[in-house]
Formats: sequence, C-alpha cells, structure tokens
Amino acid sequence: MANPAASLDAVLSHVDANIDASLERLFTLLRIASISTDPAYAGECLKAAEWLTNELKGLDFDAAVRPTAGHPMVVGHQRAADRNLLFYGHYDVQPVDPLELWTSEPFEPRIAEEDGRKVILARGASDDKGQLMTFIEACRAYKAVRGALPVGVSVLLEGEEESGSPSLDAFLTANAEELKSDIALICDTDMWDTRTPSIITMLRGLVAENVTIAAASRDLHSGMYGGAARNPNQVLAEIIASLRNPDGSVAVEGFYDDVEELPETVAEQWKRLPFDDKAYLGGVGLSEPAGEAGRSVLEQITSRPTCEINGMWGGYTGEGFKTVIPAKASAKISFRLVASQDPHKIRAAFRKHVEARVPADCTVTFHEHGASPASVVPADGPLLQKALGALSDEWGREAAVAGSGGSIPIVGDFKRKLGMDSLLIGFAQTDDRIHSPNEKYNLESYHRGIRSWVRVLDALAG
Amino acid sequence: MANPAASLDAVLSHVDANIDASLERLFTLLRIASISTDPAYAGECLKAAEWLTNELKGLDFDAAVRPTAGHPMVVGHQRAADRNLLFYGHYDVQPVDPLELWTSEPFEPRIAEEDGRKVILARGASDDKGQLMTFIEACRAYKAVRGALPVGVSVLLEGEEESGSPSLDAFLTANAEELKSDIALICDTDMWDTRTPSIITMLRGLVAENVTIAAASRDLHSGMYGGAARNPNQVLAEIIASLRNPDGSVAVEGFYDDVEELPETVAEQWKRLPFDDKAYLGGVGLSEPAGEAGRSVLEQITSRPTCEINGMWGGYTGEGFKTVIPAKASAKISFRLVASQDPHKIRAAFRKHVEARVPADCTVTFHEHGASPASVVPADGPLLQKALGALSDEWGREAAVAGSGGSIPIVGDFKRKLGMDSLLIGFAQTDDRIHSPNEKYNLESYHRGIRSWVRVLDALAG
Repeated sequence: MANPAASLDAVLSHVDANIDASLERLFTLLRIASISTDPAYAGECLKAAEWLTNELKGLDFDAAVRPTAGHPMVVGHQRAADRNLLFYGHYDVQPVDPLELWTSEPFEPRIAEEDGRKVILARGASDDKGQLMTFIEACRAYKAVRGALPVGVSVLLEGEEESGSPSLDAFLTANAEELKSDIALICDTDMWDTRTPSIITMLRGLVAENVTIAAASRDLHSGMYGGAARNPNQVLAEIIASLRNPDGSVAVEGFYDDVEELPETVAEQWKRLPFDDKAYLGGVGLSEPAGEAGRSVLEQITSRPTCEINGMWGGYTGEGFKTVIPAKASAKISFRLVASQDPHKIRAAFRKHVEARVPADCTVTFHEHGASPASVVPADGPLLQKALGALSDEWGREAAVAGSGGSIPIVGDFKRKLGMDSLLIGFAQTDDRIHSPNEKYNLESYHRGIRSWVRVLDALAG
Repeated sequence: MANPAASLDAVLSHVDANIDASLERLFTLLRIASISTDPAYAGECLKAAEWLTNELKGLDFDAAVRPTAGHPMVVGHQRAADRNLLFYGHYDVQPVDPLELWTSEPFEPRIAEEDGRKVILARGASDDKGQLMTFIEACRAYKAVRGALPVGVSVLLEGEEESGSPSLDAFLTANAEELKSDIALICDTDMWDTRTPSIITMLRGLVAENVTIAAASRDLHSGMYGGAARNPNQVLAEIIASLRNPDGSVAVEGFYDDVEELPETVAEQWKRLPFDDKAYLGGVGLSEPAGEAGRSVLEQITSRPTCEINGMWGGYTGEGFKTVIPAKASAKISFRLVASQDPHKIRAAFRKHVEARVPADCTVTFHEHGASPASVVPADGPLLQKALGALSDEWGREAAVAGSGGSIPIVGDFKRKLGMDSLLIGFAQTDDRIHSPNEKYNLESYHRGIRSWVRVLDALAG
C-alpha cells in the first residue's frame, strides 16, 4: 500500500482523513493518570510509558521502557545514515487539585465547545500529552503513506518533567552516545497567538524550594499560649513579605547580579510583535503588571527573573475556626531565572536570606525541587530557518521567534551534555490552563500540530 | 437505700467506690464525634445532646434536647425553693486534624500512662466532655447516697462553643427567665498547676476572622504569568506581616485604645503566684516570650491582647512541586481581647487595616467567626469565697484566684443577659493538648474533679 514517492500533500491529506483515530489514541493516553509528583500514581506513570512504547513499536521504532531511579523514560530509534533528529516530550502531568473546580473528570477526556472553538478537556491535554502526540501522529502518517520517515528520528519521553526531572541528568550522561543527534525537537511550548506559530529561543530557568518554619513542639491553643508563643504562620508571612521590595523587585541579595538587559535587536523586534499587555492580563481578570516597576509585561514574564510563592500553608485550614498556634508552617517558593543567573548561587542566596530572618525558638528546613539555568538557542541556525519556513507554510503567516517565561531545563541539558541545540516548537495556547483545573488543548492545535510536524520533518530532511 | 442525712464524707466515698463506672460513662460520651465546626458531624452532635439528656433524666432532671438554628442545647432543671445554681459546659469538640499525629483513634478513648500519671486520651477528654462530666457525676453521687441534690441545680450544655456559639445569644434571650439562677458554675478552665486548684476571674475576649485575597480569575502557571500577575500568597503574607510591629505589639490602629494596665493589687498577687516563664514555654519546646516586648509571659497570655494567625493557605500544598500562581489565598486570624476592648470596634479596625493594604487587581472578602469581649468576675463575692474554701479542702492547698488567656464568651453573656456572675472552676491542665492531637485529661483531674464538685455543691448550699 505504502508509496515511498508519495507527495507531502498526500501525507497531509492522510492526517486530515484520520484525525478521529488520532484523537482516539490521544484520549487513551489522557485516561492514564500519570501524575509524577505524587508517589501514589507511580503505577499510572509506568502504564503511560508502556503504552507509548507500544505505540512507537507499532511505528517500527526500536523502542523500550527504560528504568531510572524514578519514573521510567521511553526511548525509541529509527535512525537514518545522514541526518538524525531527537524528539523530546514528557508523559507525566501535574496534580489535579482543586478537583472541585473541574467541570468534568480530569482523566476522562472530552471534546467541548469554548468561545466558538472545539477543545480537548483533560489534565495533560496540552501539557504535554497533546503536544507529544502531534509528533507521534505525524510519524504515523509518514509510515502509512510512504512506509518510512523522511529523516532519522529518535524519541525520548520523560516521566518526571513536572517534578523537576530528578533522573534526567544521570540518564543523559549514561546514554549520551545513544541519544546524540543533529538537533533536538521539543514540543512543550505555546504558539505566539492562536494564528501565529512560533519557535522559542529564550527560556527562563527555575529554582524551587520547599521551606518549613517550626517553633513549638506541638500545636498550641491560642487562648493558653497566644501572645507568648512564637507563631510559625506569622514568621513565615514576614519572611515571604521580605522577599519583595516595594517596587516589585526581588529583595534577595545579589539576585540581579547576573541579569542582563535584552540585546538591542531583540528589544526592537519585541516592540514590533503583536503583544497587548491589557489583553494578556485581562484574559485572566487582571489589569496591572505586578512585577518590577518600569518593565513591560513581556519583559516581566520572559526576560526578567522573578520569585513566586506557589503554595503556603500552616495551622487550621478547614471549615469553621480553630484557635490554634501551629507547630509549623510551610511554603513552596520558586524563582524564574534568566541569562546567566546560576541556580545554585540563587538557591544559596535565598536560603541565606531566610536564615537571617528566622527568630529565636524557630528552626527552618529546606527541601529542594530542581534547579535549572535559563537557556538561549541561537536564532540563526539553518535548521531553525527551515523549521520556521515549514511552520509559516502550514499556518499561512510568518512564524515568530520568541522568548518564553516557562522553564524547560532539558534545553540546557541537551546543550551541555550532548552538545546539541534544540528547536522548541509547540502548539499550546496561553489560555490552555495548564497546571490548572479544566486544562484544554485546542482541537485545531492538535490537528494542525500534526500537520506542522509533517511539514517540519520534510523540511529538516532536505 | 438513699439516706437524706448521709454525711459529705459518705458522698465522697461513693465517688471513690464508683469511679470506674463514672469513667465508663465518660468513655461513652467521648466515643461520639461531636465536632461542631464541620457540618459533616451534625448527626454526632445531636447524638451527644441526646445521650446527655438521657443521663440527666436518669438523675431526675427535667431535661430536654432544645433545638436552635445550629446544634441543639441540652437543658435540665432540678430547682430548689431557695438557692439555684446554673451549671454550664459544652459537649462539642474541636476537629482532630492532623490525624496522623494521634497515637490512637481520637474517638476511641483509652487510659495511658504519661510521666507517671494515668491520663484519659481522646478528643474532648479535657475540653470539655471530661470537665462537664465531673459535675454530672457529682450530682449522681448525691442522688445515690442522699436521694437529692443539696441545692437547686439547672444544667445548660452547649453544642457550638468550639465554633463561636452562633446560637447562644438568641437562646439566652429567649429563655432568660428559665435559666436565670443565683450564680453560674462553668467547668471549662485549668487548674493553676497539677496540685493547685483555681477559680478564674479574668478572661480574654475573642474576635475571629476568615480573610480571603483573590486576584486572577483562575490559577495561573508561573512560567507564563510569573512576574506580571499579582500573587495572592504574596499579598496575604505582606498583610499578615503588617499586623505586628517589630516590638511584638499589634499594629492595627487603635488596637490598644481600651486596654488597661493590671490593677496594682492583682499585679502584686501575680508576682507571688508560682509561675515559671521558662518552664511554661519550655514545656512546649520554646524559650523566649514572643509577644509584646517588656511584658511577662503571664501578662502576654492573660492580661494583654494579641493577634494570632491560626491558619493560612493558598496555592499548591501537596507532595512535590507545582509552579502555580493561585487565584486566591486565605487566612484565619483571631484577636484575644482584654479589659474593655470592643470586639466590633476591633473587627472594624482590622478590616480597615487589611483593606488599606489590598493592591490593584485584588479583592478581599471577610467572614466573621464570633466576637466576645473580655470579662472580669468580681473576686470578692461570698459564693466565690465558699467555693474557694471547698476547693482548698479537696486539694489540701489554697486555691488560686487567677486570669485566663482563653475566651469563654458565655461569662459575659450570663452577666449581660441574665444579670448573673459566674464561677469558673475547672480541673484541666496546661499540658492537656486541647485543640491538638492526643488531647488528654488527667485521671486525677476527673476523679478529684468529681469530688471537688461534691464539696462545692455542699459549700454553696450553705
């Protein structure tokens, strides 16, 4: 049946004709609750890895579930003599709480209508199962129509991206020769807007810390101890308050030492990009940028570092009221890094900042959750230009070269460990509610994402 | 069998001979999970009320479960022509979380050995089921030995004390004539120490508030919005930090306007009382008073007002890490009041303080949980002196007249609505872990508490 000389259009037509089956396969993957941060879901993570491995084997990849100290990797190869690409995605997803805010079960995917568009609703629909499946389905179309891929492809799918990738470093080191390719393709980023595709060349790094302040040896009754006993909630709040200056900047000493201003050319390009501060914030019910005074929203979310309190808790948080002074209080605090900020130096400065503010009778403990520097991909490589052309062809408008506020540490890892640049090509939208209730992926992102990869593989083969 | 002329010693001996049966009845009450703050336990609250009503009926009280808008009251009467006393206690208990810190089931009471003493371990063992049962068992001993109580007694048992007593005000107003007695007896306080009984004459008031700061319309990904989006965790932490001055005093404007210094006589008496700051704090792993600078621990926990963060929560608080910017963050904040501080004025000043610190794009909502002023009982009444004598007889050392940092709003309610003073007589210990995991009541408190009430009823009858 397969015709090795079939045209690119024939492959694209196959994608269109089989989109329902492609969607059904994505739904099967979305039904697996592969939450990597919660040990209770380890079995589901393994199940997702095994399912993906079988899919790859079905497409003639030499694929296997590869154990790590944590959740396994999935690796598959279909090498060519000349050019080889390494595709990276992750099959793990974020936790789903608060569950009561979901309009349907997070792991029971469904198609819904939203603002006149069809969307796929499920945890992981966008981040990253929907995205990674666009690539696998593009490979499937080539296999069905031509019987072969146009270029050598390896696939690496991680199961711990949402929990700081603790096993990745060792895995890349141990399998560097096997994984090294001409370039990496990563599908975990947004389009510029719903109509403009983009390739991300600038990513923020991340340092994440869990901080616990402890005081008394047990919870106390505020009637009996209130006033005299140190309250960890109060202490933690004061420490958190101390992390930001009144002008919105981060108050940790030395935090901005290695932060650089945008190159003039990039700054100029950004002024031309269609980005509406009011619309971006307005889309989530906000109106004013809350970060560093004098910086645009685009700078605040991509080229400037920041500090966010991702979670905090202490004492009684249930129904009604309990007049307790808790024995401890905790916070999850993360820093987004840019340019050459060193995550280890930032972590040390943060801990020093906190330790200097822990009062008598309190102790502080830290627990680290990953550290990655920011990374920048050269914007002038020939493969990048070819990929931009393919995306522009598919979407009918010029693809953007952009920065992203999120952290995808593997870009830096690929560069340092495998000497390999990455092309960050994704079809998510800023309103996909990733990490939040009712995560969605536009059906158009899925369908045209598959078509986009068909074109990109063709372009990169040339 | 009963002999109306039996001696006081005969009644006390009956208590001793039947202590195991008294304990078994307390265990039955402790097995009822009457948590008033959580609507899920409404059925258990009713069950406790019905059980107590039946116990009172068995002692010839004219008793009934009396409905309110919330959990019911239990009222029983056994009036006399001359002197009548009103006993008050509460059958509801605090929630039990964190459950994992309990060494046994909170509602499966058991006797354990602790520091060489026998203790009753269960939620409510001390606060207030163990305490209220000391009175009921004293009545039972009189009934068994003499066939009658020595003095007229009414009993009022509340089911909402731990959730701010929302129905109490209306109930007292509606039943003022029925409940009015010569004096109220309240068993919900501590002894001075394990060997020294006390009557509390000074109680702090309470204002409790639930505060929620909301910003974006949904949880956001800190990679996409971090820096530009207002983070309610950060805002709430800054507001909490602003509530205290560096010297430990409360920073709400006008907070100290109606606070008075201790009368010279009381201040002198307190200096003579055996109170060891180091030992009091050391018992819970602390070493330094954390409240207003220059005030003793005894002042900080009884005669000075304070502000405590009883709970705070926002964002992701589970296993692992989630780089979210939450849509909202909340705190449960309470103020202990003294002297003539007006709870409504303090609440208004607190809300004004918070509202003045809510930044752009944030909203604040308040939910109130009870308000009660501080109360002071005259220390020179003849009934107080008789009760002190009875307690001194039982414990073999002079009973103390003391203040308490906790809030028992009903003392003020009895005074204002029924024109009735209260005698606060309790047998709890400061290390009873009330409101905390592994709450306990010393077996000696239970046994000698019953004996103490036998003596107090005898003394007040005279």
